Amino acid sequence: MLGAIRARPNFVKPVLVRLYHKPARNTEFKKLTASDIDFFKRVLPAETILATPAVGGTSDPVELEGFNADWLNKYRGDSQLVLRPKTTTEVSQILKYCNEQKIAVVPQGGNTGLVGGSVPVHDEVVLSLRNMNKVRGFDDISGIVTCDAGCVLEELDNYVADKGYTMPLDLGAKGSCQIGGNVATNAGGIRFLRYGTLHGSVLGLEVVLPDGTVLDNLNTLRKDNTGYDLKQLFIGSEGSLGVITGVSITTPQRPSAVNVAVLGVPSYKAVQDAFRLARRRCGEVLSAFEFWDSSCMGAVLHHQQLKSPLSAEFPFYVLVETSGSNKDHDDEKLGALLEELMENGTVEDGALAQDEQQIRRMWMMREGIPESLGKTGATYKYDISIPIPVLYDIVGDIANKLETASLFKSAGASDPVKIVCGYGHIGDGNLHLNVVADKFQDRVTEVFEPYVYEWVSSHRGSISAEHGVGLMKRDYLGYSKPKEMIDYMRRIKSMFDPNGILNPYKVL
Amino acid sequence: MLGAIRARPNFVKPVLVRLYHKPARNTEFKKLTASDIDFFKRVLPAETILATPAVGGTSDPVELEGFNADWLNKYRGDSQLVLRPKTTTEVSQILKYCNEQKIAVVPQGGNTGLVGGSVPVHDEVVLSLRNMNKVRGFDDISGIVTCDAGCVLEELDNYVADKGYTMPLDLGAKGSCQIGGNVATNAGGIRFLRYGTLHGSVLGLEVVLPDGTVLDNLNTLRKDNTGYDLKQLFIGSEGSLGVITGVSITTPQRPSAVNVAVLGVPSYKAVQDAFRLARRRCGEVLSAFEFWDSSCMGAVLHHQQLKSPLSAEFPFYVLVETSGSNKDHDDEKLGALLEELMENGTVEDGALAQDEQQIRRMWMMREGIPESLGKTGATYKYDISIPIPVLYDIVGDIANKLETASLFKSAGASDPVKIVCGYGHIGDGNLHLNVVADKFQDRVTEVFEPYVYEWVSSHRGSISAEHGVGLMKRDYLGYSKPKEMIDYMRRIKSMFDPNGILNPYKVL
Repeated sequence: MLGAIRARPNFVKPVLVRLYHKPARNTEFKKLTASDIDFFKRVLPAETILATPAVGGTSDPVELEGFNADWLNKYRGDSQLVLRPKTTTEVSQILKYCNEQKIAVVPQGGNTGLVGGSVPVHDEVVLSLRNMNKVRGFDDISGIVTCDAGCVLEELDNYVADKGYTMPLDLGAKGSCQIGGNVATNAGGIRFLRYGTLHGSVLGLEVVLPDGTVLDNLNTLRKDNTGYDLKQLFIGSEGSLGVITGVSITTPQRPSAVNVAVLGVPSYKAVQDAFRLARRRCGEVLSAFEFWDSSCMGAVLHHQQLKSPLSAEFPFYVLVETSGSNKDHDDEKLGALLEELMENGTVEDGALAQDEQQIRRMWMMREGIPESLGKTGATYKYDISIPIPVLYDIVGDIANKLETASLFKSAGASDPVKIVCGYGHIGDGNLHLNVVADKFQDRVTEVFEPYVYEWVSSHRGSISAEHGVGLMKRDYLGYSKPKEMIDYMRRIKSMFDPNGILNPYKVL
Repeated sequence: MLGAIRARPNFVKPVLVRLYHKPARNTEFKKLTASDIDFFKRVLPAETILATPAVGGTSDPVELEGFNADWLNKYRGDSQLVLRPKTTTEVSQILKYCNEQKIAVVPQGGNTGLVGGSVPVHDEVVLSLRNMNKVRGFDDISGIVTCDAGCVLEELDNYVADKGYTMPLDLGAKGSCQIGGNVATNAGGIRFLRYGTLHGSVLGLEVVLPDGTVLDNLNTLRKDNTGYDLKQLFIGSEGSLGVITGVSITTPQRPSAVNVAVLGVPSYKAVQDAFRLARRRCGEVLSAFEFWDSSCMGAVLHHQQLKSPLSAEFPFYVLVETSGSNKDHDDEKLGALLEELMENGTVEDGALAQDEQQIRRMWMMREGIPESLGKTGATYKYDISIPIPVLYDIVGDIANKLETASLFKSAGASDPVKIVCGYGHIGDGNLHLNVVADKFQDRVTEVFEPYVYEWVSSHRGSISAEHGVGLMKRDYLGYSKPKEMIDYMRRIKSMFDPNGILNPYKVL
């Protein structure tokens, strides 16, 4: 659990946290009593229960702190009971009881989510999967791993690395996040361009439904066309339909060669041209194509003690990565791409990492952006998908609106808004739009919210590309989904969870 | 529609067709009357309706023949009405009316399925998508195509090929099958190893529900985490939940170099070893790894006028294909793999195709197997998924059982069973198990059915890897899915199609 501690640098002293609307407690949910705690003591080992004196237990409320607050310390609940079962049977017993008693439950993995989906809103019981952390099996020929939902992503990646494979997803929180949580939130991350969505790589799930039913769909088959693929419903359901207890997932061959280059690019049009050529020239070895603008670069160079590897400043920067099975071949492919991009003027400068350390520094330039913006001021963050051709237009539009309202670039240093910028995974059409202000305030927010969501909606984009809905975006779902689809989502929720005990107040 | 004709060589004179159990007509479905035909005439152009005199129309029943029978002419219905709408609105009007009137409907794409899913069982209305065949849009930067469901796969592949992309699936029926049918049946095929499942590559769907509701989820985003991914339910639902009218799908870069080799392999263990090494050495360019046994090879050489490219006979054969963006690199990777496999004795002989014609011949060797077995006798076919390590064991088991029953290899030429063999997509764990007899007869069937399904079930395999359930495997679903999952499948069916009008008698 060291990873979990490392991943929460701001845990003790949160800064500049934006307030969120907390829905009222649903009074139909039962409040815990000592007799409930007695039940859990009968079905679970004592060391897996954390109950405060408020519900008849003996745990210090401080022990529950890390389960009640998310890692940015933005969302915070008031749970008095944390259960950490070790087996699927225990999970089934817990849910069956809670369903009968109408006790609300929030399933929790590594608690690294960004939309308030993994912490209680009020007094929900926290059902932590962290004690279910065993690999159940590995097929060395096909590269399929089957494991408990509470396995930490990085530990799984190390496990399969020993056998020559790699997990098909990777993200900043890998040291803490759990595979069950990754699946429940349909996590994206930086390997998405290469290995695609979890809807493709997850082969089987074991899921416990609110009534205690164990849906055993934990198969390890790449192909299975025997009716509706129910497991897909749980991928991205954010724990609101059932609790994932087991996962089987296909893992690709681990690449033996990795190359990284950073490019200086004169326009967003050129970023797109570079991406198209990179797909053509590097095709099967292209593993990342990330971009950021000059405002992001300014912040990251200022705050991360990094030096740009390029000779000058550019409107846009691109990080291109190849991963393959033959270093010489990949060098040649990437070298030819860079030469062509420079020759035809798509790219104005480029630097190729010469060793592991340079690779790490180049990635830090991209991955250090969120933290650097956070150090600059109060950051409004939007994780959106938009068709690539118009992806960056929204950044200019928002900047213009703020300028027109005299909040940005008008009177210089006294403007409340400091930076309007964008970065993201261009290959996936995923933009992280950020507005940095001196503090969170209504007159700034009103200029671009709900305008951002309207803009995304009018381009048939998604208001949540990879972070999910959680509590944060529940009220905005209509911008991404037509009414008919939301209606069917509700019907599916009622079908699996008629009492609504699972992760209430979230998603829908 | 030339493709459709080409793909039905046996249409007129079917041979050796195995009988199937036809469920009784559900009397709750309304029988068509002239007033129903009048309604359809009001909402559809005249040329899109085929109605026989039996229901008050004027079409010759012969014109409906191709819609009533599947392409193997094994499954056959008795529909008197075929509707070929041109727009989503027309599909919606048809379904709304049929739902209100309780008229059963079978949606039909290219009608190339193998499990009786795409033809009526009794007098269901055939809703053919063939008039909805336009590409709606193509994003040249991301390679995402959006199109009507009735687009023929090969035509789509040609369309995206012009732009440097390739469809992520390919199968024998590509000249006739339609993308909507591919999605509805979750088609697999020979590019599956490289580009994965349609659950990963389909980005959006437009679906008309039985009550006429149009679920517009036709987005073109690689990432969208805004709640339950409803479209996944329709992928592989075989037209039993809704009618797919539009599809958006991501297309990979078209490979510019293709290499193919055929290998002679001494054992199934060695086939697995070769596969493992191929993944390691060719990693990102490996695009197919198919295998077949000596019995398959015997049949194909006998019936296809092909000569083995190898020097001798072997227990197993492998076809390995690479597809990449650089011919020299791929040659080097595949060359090194073959050398290593020969040197360490995993492979005893190998031949590398030197030109396009040799590539085609090698593929014919693999793809000619089903036809060659069909020419040998009455073929019992099973399309199953089994974990790779035990994949081929079932072939030996079935052969032993038949031998013990004195039906195979006992009295020589007078044995009813001629061949027990296996071939398939090893990379996907997908075996095509075939038993060839002089004719279909109960004393043969009884030996291995339901034994085959029990065997698959005991190894947590799938009784349908890529062909689907349809009418053929409906009664065997319990061998692949636990009762709880089938129950939830039924509930989902009732939710979307409460009157059960869509593709009745199939899947569930």
